[in-house]
Formats: sequence, C-alpha cells, structure tokens
Amino acid sequence: MEKFEVNILGCGSALPTTRHFPTSQVVNVRDKLFMIDCGEGAQLQFRKARLKFSRLNQIFISHLHGDHCFGLLGLISTFDLLGRTAELHIHSPEGLEERLVPMLNYFCRGMGYRVLFHPFDTREVAQIYEDRSLTVTTLPLRHRIPCCGFLFAEKQRPNHIIREQIDFYGVPMHELNRIKNGADYATPDGRLIPNSLLTRPAASPRRYAYCSDTVYMPELAPLIAGVDLLFHEATFAHSELSRARETFHTTARQAAELAAAARVRRLLIGHFSARYEDESVLLAEACQLFPDTLLAHETLCVSVG
Amino acid sequence: MEKFEVNILGCGSALPTTRHFPTSQVVNVRDKLFMIDCGEGAQLQFRKARLKFSRLNQIFISHLHGDHCFGLLGLISTFDLLGRTAELHIHSPEGLEERLVPMLNYFCRGMGYRVLFHPFDTREVAQIYEDRSLTVTTLPLRHRIPCCGFLFAEKQRPNHIIREQIDFYGVPMHELNRIKNGADYATPDGRLIPNSLLTRPAASPRRYAYCSDTVYMPELAPLIAGVDLLFHEATFAHSELSRARETFHTTARQAAELAAAARVRRLLIGHFSARYEDESVLLAEACQLFPDTLLAHETLCVSVG
Repeated sequence: MEKFEVNILGCGSALPTTRHFPTSQVVNVRDKLFMIDCGEGAQLQFRKARLKFSRLNQIFISHLHGDHCFGLLGLISTFDLLGRTAELHIHSPEGLEERLVPMLNYFCRGMGYRVLFHPFDTREVAQIYEDRSLTVTTLPLRHRIPCCGFLFAEKQRPNHIIREQIDFYGVPMHELNRIKNGADYATPDGRLIPNSLLTRPAASPRRYAYCSDTVYMPELAPLIAGVDLLFHEATFAHSELSRARETFHTTARQAAELAAAARVRRLLIGHFSARYEDESVLLAEACQLFPDTLLAHETLCVSVG
Repeated sequence: MEKFEVNILGCGSALPTTRHFPTSQVVNVRDKLFMIDCGEGAQLQFRKARLKFSRLNQIFISHLHGDHCFGLLGLISTFDLLGRTAELHIHSPEGLEERLVPMLNYFCRGMGYRVLFHPFDTREVAQIYEDRSLTVTTLPLRHRIPCCGFLFAEKQRPNHIIREQIDFYGVPMHELNRIKNGADYATPDGRLIPNSLLTRPAASPRRYAYCSDTVYMPELAPLIAGVDLLFHEATFAHSELSRARETFHTTARQAAELAAAARVRRLLIGHFSARYEDESVLLAEACQLFPDTLLAHETLCVSVG
C-alpha cells in the first residue's frame, strides 16, 4: 500500500509544557509532505522526525492563533538558509500574508525562493488543493476566530492489470491505460472482454480529517463520515465541559461522540490542555464511547487506513 | 554564596538540528532572571529548565537575526495567557519594536501587560541596566549586522559583620549599616576601632560576559579581562577559519585565544554549526589553549565564579 501517514510534531495547546510542543503535523502522501499548522518549534520537530524539508511544498494553517503559526518564520528562514528555490505555498484564513511579509522582508532579506499565500474562506467547504493523487478540502469549524479543519482525500486509483489475462487475450500495450481506467477490451475478431476479467480493483481511496481548534460540532459528522483517520482536538476532559464551551474547545468524550456518529475508522485525539500531566484520562474517556481511539504524542506516526 | 548562574536553553546556530535549539540563555542572579537572546523554542526550554516565568522581567537581544529572536512572539503571548501584569523590558539593537509590535497587536490583542523596548547603540560600551545588585553593559561585536555582547557584573556587596566583635566592642545597632559599608567605629570613650576588626570583606563581585555572534575580536580582551565566566561563540573548528571569517563567526581556537588573553576564569563555548555531529572536536581544540573550557549543551546550568 502506498504511503499515507500522519506525523505528529506537536500536540499541546497554547501554553507550553515540558511534555508537548504546540500544534503541528505532517501528512506524508507517497513522500510528498503536507504540513498542517506550524506552532513554535515545528522545524525542530520536523528534523527530529527525520522528514525531508525538500519534500514540503504546501502548508495548511487552520487559524491564526500563535500556537498554530508562530513556527512559520523559523521554518521559512531555514528553507532560505538551506538554499531552497522551490515555491512554498501557505493556505490559511485571511490575514497571514499581511502579518508575515513585513517580518520576512526584514529577517530574510533577498530570499532565494517565493512564499505564496492562498487565503481561504473559513465559512465554506471548498477544495483548496489538488494534485494527481490527492485533494484537500476545508472543513468549517467554530472557534474564537475564523478556523477550518482539513480533509485529505486520496483520489481513486486506476485498477490493477492482471498480467496473465492480458497475455491470454493478447491485449496490445496501447490499450492498457484505457483498461486500467475501466474500459472493456474488444478483440480484433469482435469479442468484448469485460474489464472485470482483465483487472483487479485498486484499494479504495483513503481519507484523513483534521479538526482543531473547535467547539463540539455534531454537524461535522456527514462531512467526515467514514474517514480512515480522524484527528480531533480533545483539549479537556468532559468534567471541564463548561470551560471547553467558553473557550470554543472540545472534550475527549465529545470527540469520541463525533467519531462514533461519523463512523470513522480510527480517532486520534490531541491539542491537550497544559493541565493534564497524564493524558490517559482523556484516552480512557474517549475509548468508552469509541474504542479505536489513539492518543497523540510527539513523533507518533500513524498510518491512514 | 548567592546565586549567579547561567542556564543554557539553546546553543545551536541558525540551522536547526536534532541536537540543539537556537540561541537562548537565562542568567539567574539571586532568583531574578535575565534572558539573553530568545531563539525559537526558548519558552519551551525555559519550562524544561524549571525556571519561573514570573521572575523574568528583562530580555537582552544581541542582534536581530531570527535564530536569536524568533522565540519572542511565543514567549510574550504565553506571558499574556498566564495573566502577566508586570512590564517586560526588551533591550536590543534598533528595529525590533517596529517589527514586533504589529505582530503583537494582531496575535495578542488586548494584552494585559506592557512590553517596553529599549534600543541600544551597538557601537559603544554602555551600561544599559542597573539594579541594586547588578549592572549590564554592552560589548560591541562585529557580525554581519549590528550586534552586541553583554557584561553582567555584580556590584560590590557590603562587608560581613563579625558578630562576636560587634558584641565585644558594644557597637550599637544603628551603626551597623555604616560599618558594613567600611566605616570604622568610634567608641563612646573616644577609641577608634578599625573596620577590619569588625568585618570580613564580602566575596568579590562576579562577572559574566556573553559574546555571540562575532568574528574573532582580540580587542575584546580588556573589556572582559578577568571575568569569572566567558560565554563565547565557537561556531566552527579552526580548520574552517575562512568560512568563519566570511560569515563573521569565531573558531573554537580563537575563542580560547581570547579567553587566555583576557585571563578569564572559565570559558563556555557554544553556537555550534549544524555540521558538527559531535562537538568534542571543538572542546578539544579550545582546551589545548585554554584548559578551563566547557562545552555548552541544552539545560546545562553553570555557576559564575
């Protein structure tokens, strides 16, 4: 199976602790790297995770709170020191470019590559990135400031050719692409060989949903229904429900409720409040409702699907 | 002896490695904390060193390269989240306020405390801070942009009273402060008791000098002569002398030469280039010329004097 992994660089919330870095993740899709959020220290954790800077071209920022974007300056500077020439694309809510560009102009004068900013509207579900194998779509969240989650969806891949059958029916090379994409094969003497005899279906496309920071939103369920992996914030235990509501965060139990309602395959919780010395209380709470729950921690690498 | 310690939060240079954080130190003088430089992740390392945020009121930035100041935004935000009300003073070369304030206005709207900026002239030796027990003085350095080191000097403390002698000569309470500060004591019957009979001298004031980033400057020696601890950058080994000169950095051997010429008590080297997987080569090189050399590493705490 081709690589589709989530690397946790940081899973703490705004206040620093000795246990966690602020939020940052790297999604690795067939060795193309996509960063989600970039809290302070993200570049240091990136090195620790032994990921390659040169593979990172797209960064997605959920919202403009410092603990989700203060690592950008250091990362962008480092890329320049390393002689990067490839463009870097940053997708975020409105407002980042105006703040970051004056800093870059001062601290990275004469930068050798371009940073391109792509603001998105946090109120709508919209595809904001596409390549040959992947799309990224915004998931509107409700936080104290405009905020979006992201849905990473693999595209359906072509069917796999069954080599023996191709040989048996004498299918010429130039027909193979059409057949991979589902066409039947007409032999020179007029017979129609159905595609199902010539190919095996590719694995179904996998999906990863990232939802942080947000108050509990049951209405997210249809948007993330059946994803292979859901990262959801679980800043607090349910005993802190009122604090969670006030600060527009979610409890571990609520994250599990959403995972169950959306029938996701696995739930990964993170964005832990600094008050929890030991987050196993959050894990236990989520597992009661949704047993396939994992606790995020720095340098964890989880396979999607 | 009262506390005068240097805590290393980060001792790498600009490129991140898995071994080092960028530059930051905390000087602890009798539990008042002074930060020197504030690279990315400084607030995380501060927590790891188990230092108290509330004790930090003064930050000194040597120069405006990102690896020496990109941690400020996160640190300042965190102080606000923690409900700080005390003013925070930042001493740095010209230009920091203009860059930082727009970011703070956006990311820390309605901050509960004031950040006061105190730009200093990097071309002159000047006292930029003073309290009851300490002065901080700039040490002009030569780097690619305006840059200063800092000399932290304890003030001479009053002599220690010899309790038995005070009792023996029947010295009244109200005379004690004068005597601590060196006065002799005139008895009611006209005898003069010399101060040396009544007090022991306090320990001599200790001094810490911080010199980073800079090309080798032998002319620094008189400014830092005899300090108890000299932190000096040693970005490269001497085999990379031409690279050191080009980038306005120092080699380990040059740092040791300066330490020897200035007859300092101990030398602490840091700001290591990312190319050194194992910095013992730098330590060995420095020790050849100046045996009392220490290698900086994260969470190291060195006593001054």
